Parts: sequence; C-alpha cells; structure tokens
Amino acid sequence: MLESVNRSKDWRDLVVALDDHHLDTLARAAAATVASLRSSPDAPRSAISPSALRELIRSRALCPEDGDDLETVIDDFAATVWRHGVVVSDVACVAHLHPPTLVPAVAAELAIAATNQSMDSWDQAPAATEVELYLMDWLAELIGFDRSASGVMTSGGTASNLLGVTLARSAAAARLGVDVLKSGLPDEASDWRILCSDQAHFSIQRAAAQLGLGRDAVVAVATTASGALDVAALDEEIARQSRAGARVIAIVATAGTTDLGAIDPLEAVAARARHLGCWLHVDAAVAGAFLLSERLKTGLAGIDLADSVTIDFHKLWWQPFNASALVVRDESNFDLLRVRSDYLDRGDELEGMVNLVGRSLDTSRRFDAAKVVVSLRTLGRRALAEMLEHLVDLAVFAGETIDAEPDLSLLARPAATTCVFDAPGASEDDLRQVQQRLLARGEMVLGRTQIKGRAALKFTFMNPLATTEDVERVVRVVAAELRALRAAS
Amino acid sequence: MLESVNRSKDWRDLVVALDDHHLDTLARAAAATVASLRSSPDAPRSAISPSALRELIRSRALCPEDGDDLETVIDDFAATVWRHGVVVSDVACVAHLHPPTLVPAVAAELAIAATNQSMDSWDQAPAATEVELYLMDWLAELIGFDRSASGVMTSGGTASNLLGVTLARSAAAARLGVDVLKSGLPDEASDWRILCSDQAHFSIQRAAAQLGLGRDAVVAVATTASGALDVAALDEEIARQSRAGARVIAIVATAGTTDLGAIDPLEAVAARARHLGCWLHVDAAVAGAFLLSERLKTGLAGIDLADSVTIDFHKLWWQPFNASALVVRDESNFDLLRVRSDYLDRGDELEGMVNLVGRSLDTSRRFDAAKVVVSLRTLGRRALAEMLEHLVDLAVFAGETIDAEPDLSLLARPAATTCVFDAPGASEDDLRQVQQRLLARGEMVLGRTQIKGRAALKFTFMNPLATTEDVERVVRVVAAELRALRAAS
Repeated sequence: MLESVNRSKDWRDLVVALDDHHLDTLARAAAATVASLRSSPDAPRSAISPSALRELIRSRALCPEDGDDLETVIDDFAATVWRHGVVVSDVACVAHLHPPTLVPAVAAELAIAATNQSMDSWDQAPAATEVELYLMDWLAELIGFDRSASGVMTSGGTASNLLGVTLARSAAAARLGVDVLKSGLPDEASDWRILCSDQAHFSIQRAAAQLGLGRDAVVAVATTASGALDVAALDEEIARQSRAGARVIAIVATAGTTDLGAIDPLEAVAARARHLGCWLHVDAAVAGAFLLSERLKTGLAGIDLADSVTIDFHKLWWQPFNASALVVRDESNFDLLRVRSDYLDRGDELEGMVNLVGRSLDTSRRFDAAKVVVSLRTLGRRALAEMLEHLVDLAVFAGETIDAEPDLSLLARPAATTCVFDAPGASEDDLRQVQQRLLARGEMVLGRTQIKGRAALKFTFMNPLATTEDVERVVRVVAAELRALRAAS
Repeated sequence: MLESVNRSKDWRDLVVALDDHHLDTLARAAAATVASLRSSPDAPRSAISPSALRELIRSRALCPEDGDDLETVIDDFAATVWRHGVVVSDVACVAHLHPPTLVPAVAAELAIAATNQSMDSWDQAPAATEVELYLMDWLAELIGFDRSASGVMTSGGTASNLLGVTLARSAAAARLGVDVLKSGLPDEASDWRILCSDQAHFSIQRAAAQLGLGRDAVVAVATTASGALDVAALDEEIARQSRAGARVIAIVATAGTTDLGAIDPLEAVAARARHLGCWLHVDAAVAGAFLLSERLKTGLAGIDLADSVTIDFHKLWWQPFNASALVVRDESNFDLLRVRSDYLDRGDELEGMVNLVGRSLDTSRRFDAAKVVVSLRTLGRRALAEMLEHLVDLAVFAGETIDAEPDLSLLARPAATTCVFDAPGASEDDLRQVQQRLLARGEMVLGRTQIKGRAALKFTFMNPLATTEDVERVVRVVAAELRALRAAS
C-alpha cells in the first residue's frame, strides 16, 4: 500500500506545498478561479427559481468515484453556483449587512488557506498568534481601553456576543463563589436577568438560551423613536427587576442596530451598569467601524466604559466572512474561560509561546486576523473612514429621496448605513410581495423587516462604489414595483 | 462629501467587483500572494524566538493613516508573517491534527471570499444554501442515515460537538415539557449527566460548561488500553448514576480520539443509549473521513445509530480551517433551535427559499461547503481514500520504526494517523525538553501529550506527501535529540 501510493502521481499535485512545482499549480488554480467569476450575472442575482436551482445543483455528482480535472470543476462550479449566487457588489444588493469585500482581504484568504495556521496553539500559529494579539491591542486602543485590554477573533457577531455574555455569566457566578463552567448554573441563576433594548440583535437572546438562562432572562427595554435605548425606560426596568427580586447580571448596549443603525446612549447606560455592579457588553458589530472616522465616532462616546465589546470586521470593514472580534477591557477576564489541555495548552511552554485556545470558545480556528491586517495596511485609516462616511451619506441621501417620493414614506432618519421605509396605504403583504418579486426576478435584493411591529422595507448600503445615481435608481425601482402591484390588484 | 468620494479613485480599485477591471486587479493580487509564499522557510518553522517574533510583528504600523501599495504589503506580510509560521506541508510538522490543504479548496477560498455569500438566509446565498444542503445530504447518506437526516456546517469540531450537546439538552428538557432555550434550565438539570470516555475531546466538557450544566456534569468512563471506551465500565457508570438518582441525558462516543485514534464500540454504546432513551452523539471529527475507505470504515459500524454526528472536513479531508459538519439523523431536531427573526427568517418567503439560520448557532456564516465540494469533485472518493489509507499505513510504519528504536518505546499500536511514544527512563521534563528544543530550533513541530497520566510524545501524520523515508527520519531526529539531552545532563 505504501509503495503504491508513493508511485501514484495524480493527487500528489493537488496537495498544497511551498515548492515551485506546487505553488505553480496553486497559481494556475487561483487564476482559473478568478477567471471563472467572469460568468457571474450582471444583476444582483439570476432569476432562477428555487426549485430549478435545487435541481441544477443536484445534477452534478457531489463526490464521484474518480475526480475530474481541476479547471473543469472550477468552471462548472462557477457556471452552476457562483452564477446563481447573490452579487454583493451589485448596487441593488441592499438587503442586509452583507458587504462586498476588499481585494487585499480576498488575496489574503488565499494565503490563510494555503498556510492553514490554527490559532489554538502557538506551535500551530507562531506569527499568526502575534498578529492576532497585535490587532486586538490596536482595536482595544481604538476603543479607548488601556493596556490591560485584549481580545480574540471569533466567527461573527453572534459568537462575539455569546462570548461577552458568557464572561458576564461567569463574573456573576464568581461573586457567589461559584465556578459556573465547572459546577453549572447555581440555583440563583433563575433570577438572573440581562437587559438590552428592544432593538438589540437576537443573538443576545440566543446567547442566553445557549447559556442555560433562557431567552426569557433577556428583558427588552423600550427604545426612543430613533431606535436607541430609552434611559428612562431602563431606569424603570432596573427598579422593576429590583422589586421583583431579580438580579441584573449584564446590560447589553447596542452601537448600531440592525434596522435603524441606532446607537444606545453608552455613557448613560454605563453609569447604570456601574451602579448595579454588573457587566456591560457593547454590541458594536455594526457601528464599531465608526471609530475609524473622526466625524462618525462621536456617537460612540462611552464605549470605553464597557467590559466587553463586539466589533464585526465582516460588516463595515468589508472583510469576507468570518471576521469578528470580542475585545475585553481586562484581559484577565479570559481566565474565566481557561481550559488546560494535555495536548494543546499545558502551561509549561517556553516563555512567550501564548496559546490562544484559552480565550476562545473554539479550538481549531483560522487566521482571519491576517486578512484584516493586510486590508488595514493597504487601505489605511483615512480611506476606510471615507468609504464609511460615503455610505452614511448615501443612506441620508436615500432618506431624502424617499421623502421626496410620494409613493414611499421614510420611517426614521438614517443614522448609519440603513434606511427603512414603507408606503402609504400598503399592507404588510404588499411590502412582502414587492420584496419577493424583485428578488424572484433578480432585480433587487431588498431588505424587509418590522419596525416596532410595523412592516417595513429596508435598504442597507454596504457598497462604497455605489453613487447617488444608484440610490435614486433603487428608490425608483421599489416605487415602480409598488405601483405595478397596485395596478394589478 | 458624496462628490469628493465620487472623485476619489484610489480605494475604488480595491473593492472586489465582477467587472473585468476589478477582476484583473484581483487576479494580480492573487498571483502576488501565491508568489509571496515562495519566501516560506524550507523547514517546519523558522528558528525565530517568541520575543524576537513579537518585536518583528510589532515593527510594522497596523493601520497607517494612508495605505501602502497592495503588492508591497503582500510581500512584507509574507516576509514577516508567513515566513515565521509553521509549514504544514513540511513532513516534520507532526504535532497536531493540522493538515496541509488541497489546491482545489484553497482556490475555492478565493471565490468564497470574493463572492461572500452568507449562509444565514436564502437571499444572501441562494445557490450556496442548496450546495450546503446537498453536501449535508451526501454526508448523511455516507454515514448511513436515511432521508430524514440533514446537517449544517459549523466552524469546527468544538462547535459541532456543542451543537450536538445543545440538541441533546433541548431533547432532555422537552421530555419534561420545558423549552430550555426559552425558559432556561429546569431544576432537574442539576441531575443531568453526559457520559463519554476519558479520551473524549475536551470540547465535550466545554459544551457542558457553556450550556450551564458545568464540566462536572460530564462523567468520564474508563477506556481500554487502546483508548476506546470500555463497555463494562460504561455499564457500571450507568448503574452508578442511576443509583445516585442522576439522569443520563446523552452519551458521547468518540470515533478517532485525538491522541490514540481509538474508535469507541459504537454499536454497543448505541444499545446503551437506546436503552436509556438518551441522545447519542458521535464525535467523528477525526475518523469520520474513514467512511470514504472500504478498508477503514469497518471500525465505524454503528455510526448510523447516532442522533448526531460531528465530522471535521478540516482534519482528514485536508480542508483549510474552518470546515466542520454536524449531521443529525432527524432533520426536525433542528426545530429545537429555530429562532424567528424579523429581518432574516420570517417564514413567509417563497416556496423553496430555505433560511439556514434556523439550524445554526451562528448568524452570518461563510460558504465553507464550497471548498469541500470543489475538492470532492476534483479528487474523487478513490483518491481521498488512498491518501487516508496511506497516512494510517505511515502511522503503523512509524510504530514499527519506534519499536525497532532502542531509545524509544511505543505506547499503543497506531489505530489512525497518530503514534504515541515515550523513551525508557526519560522523565516528563526530558520529553518536554525534546519537544520544545526541536520547536525552538525550527527542526520539528512534535506533539506532546499525556496518555493515562503518563507523559508522551506524539506524531500526527496529516501530510499525504510524506513517505516511509520521512517517517524514518523524524523518528531518528527525536531519538538523537533525546540522546543529546542525556549527554548534556
């Protein structure tokens, strides 16, 4: 068997190695892959139906007995899969916080995958460990934390929020002398509450569910018309919980809500958390990027008062999924998570060999920090700030355009890169149909949500290449679709 | 502001778009990235010290005010970071389940990042959703599940195991009429136990910790000399838990332990789980790939009796991190996780538009299934099976070589791709020094662990390009280092 494999030549060319022969193969494959993307549709998506798409995807053998030529597979995959994806760089792809990506980041992904460092231990990622720590220190400084801060990269805002709430849970248990990770939730945990606004991301509820507290442990506090947490309502809720004998273990403030882009009043919220002696987590998945802009960062005053902060690089930093960070004000909080492992993190390594497994909820973990750092170094702060300011300006411009459009009504003045609206006299089902028809025909990937119980459509501007003309066009298309729907009914 | 950005030209070239101009830029960046890898060391790693490495990494501005030329950044990043990583394709990089990757997978990563589909909703990933579902169906069939099975991609074995144990917890609570995700852990949860072998991965303990049950809820059952769960010990433990009034909510069997590659007796374990009426999760992160080989899959008989199965594509399928799957025997189990969201998964979409957010613990999620599918189609089952069999044969050969080497002692006959050993008369610190010195000098990335309380060294063969000569060489190097250590003391 060993001999036969040593003779076999076919698959040996397909393993990544760093000699000239293997790198030449990789270079050809990379070139073929980029070329194959030329078959992507010149629209936000193709108009293929869900059932036809399923049939097309399943018309190829998933794992044939013998493989096919690499370039043939790449081209066929492009023709069947990439061709029927959504085109995030299309200016009419405006549904979600779902960005086009940056060339330096995408190029870095190639090296990340080819070198395949794993962030759990220093001996799987020596330089990568240092790069991630450097990025986390830089991010902590951007937030305004001092040198006792640090952080860790995670797979997304949901994971970062989970990690933040996990630390909050451990801190609450530690006050009772309980190591919750070892012994499980104490009886008192049934009285634990997490407060956040009614516009907070659903990942806070999911975190509480995951942690055994249950979604019901998350108490939603009313927001003002702008979507930001109402401090008076927070005070009332704190008083109500106190009267009920519940214990608030964490307040989660949101910096950049998904629909309205609202930023909670961080300083006021921090004062309440301090008074309660509870954990303050700031979910800045969306608006964390505003720290790069002198003009936009003013809304984030007080973020440095948080115990933990979520920032998503795969939103307004234009990184490919996945790339998020959880930054903690005090690095020693990660001790709450630490798990010694016989094979990964023994604690008897040479000085300076840091094993990051102890601060992550993952074990094997890709070197996503690389793409962020290559992007930051290539673009620089100023360009990123300009791109961001441009998108916020586009959202404001979209709001003005909608205001001027009699068939549509703006629901709130845009605060970040989203713009929510509905239409006079349109039912929830009308709005649903507009969104679904534009999606089905491949003309627009439009957002749809609920704002305080009211159905709404949503633009999320993520593409810095978009112009005011593009915004005018997408507004016109939506208005025309609504009129067409009415005319048909 | 809008005008000035529309005039600005620099960063506009760095956003990925699918027109010829932008794809040409991406192609150049990809070519430069591959070329930059030629500066990688011709060794498992460079001999730079941790402190010198930290200083080197921090000698570059992380985010300058103005960016630098893309190719300059790529080359400098390679010279400082990739050059000082570990080289997973070096035959002396044998510490962990940390593979070199496949050319089709790495090329696919480029397209994954450029197209940036997000798996949480159909309107962010229409074709990608179908590809992931197709891959999960294929994997379910490979396991031997029927058509009611399905699965979801996760970020790693730790996340897959967490998801499996999360489902087990929900199922246990549902029997009491409790929706644990909504209401939190019921009082009865303090009596819940999870049984697994003492060689199970620490992610099972981490899952219990995360879920509020605590690591103490995980009861380790003794293993035989081979490292596989001892069924008699399992029966004793079940009886002991029953006497103590505890309730076993899940048994976790391991198919391919981290150190010994042992596979628990799945059919016997499944019979116990069935008798208890509890969840059976099989952690086949390591040995799941054996399903591709007629010769190797016999050890996995009974895997189709599981309720959920973890399989890591980023181990013995040579995929770049991250790529794992959690496959469930009954797709409806995902209903336990479902969270409706106003903006992502409203339930009123057109027929066939499946939103995968409901089966994942993540929200935004990259299209990792793409690289797996491109790899399977390019290599085919037969080549993957050959590569795998070759590595298992290499581990057996390493065992024989160690047996023949008077300075080393084999601790167990290799069962998968690992080989654990120590040295006659060597202390734990001797073994530590051998491993740390070889690492510090960049000559070998060697594994080190504990086998039943006994310090050991470990080879993990992940590189299918390695030969018997390479194995002989790494064994010789370790033996020589031990001798050198003794001569010096």
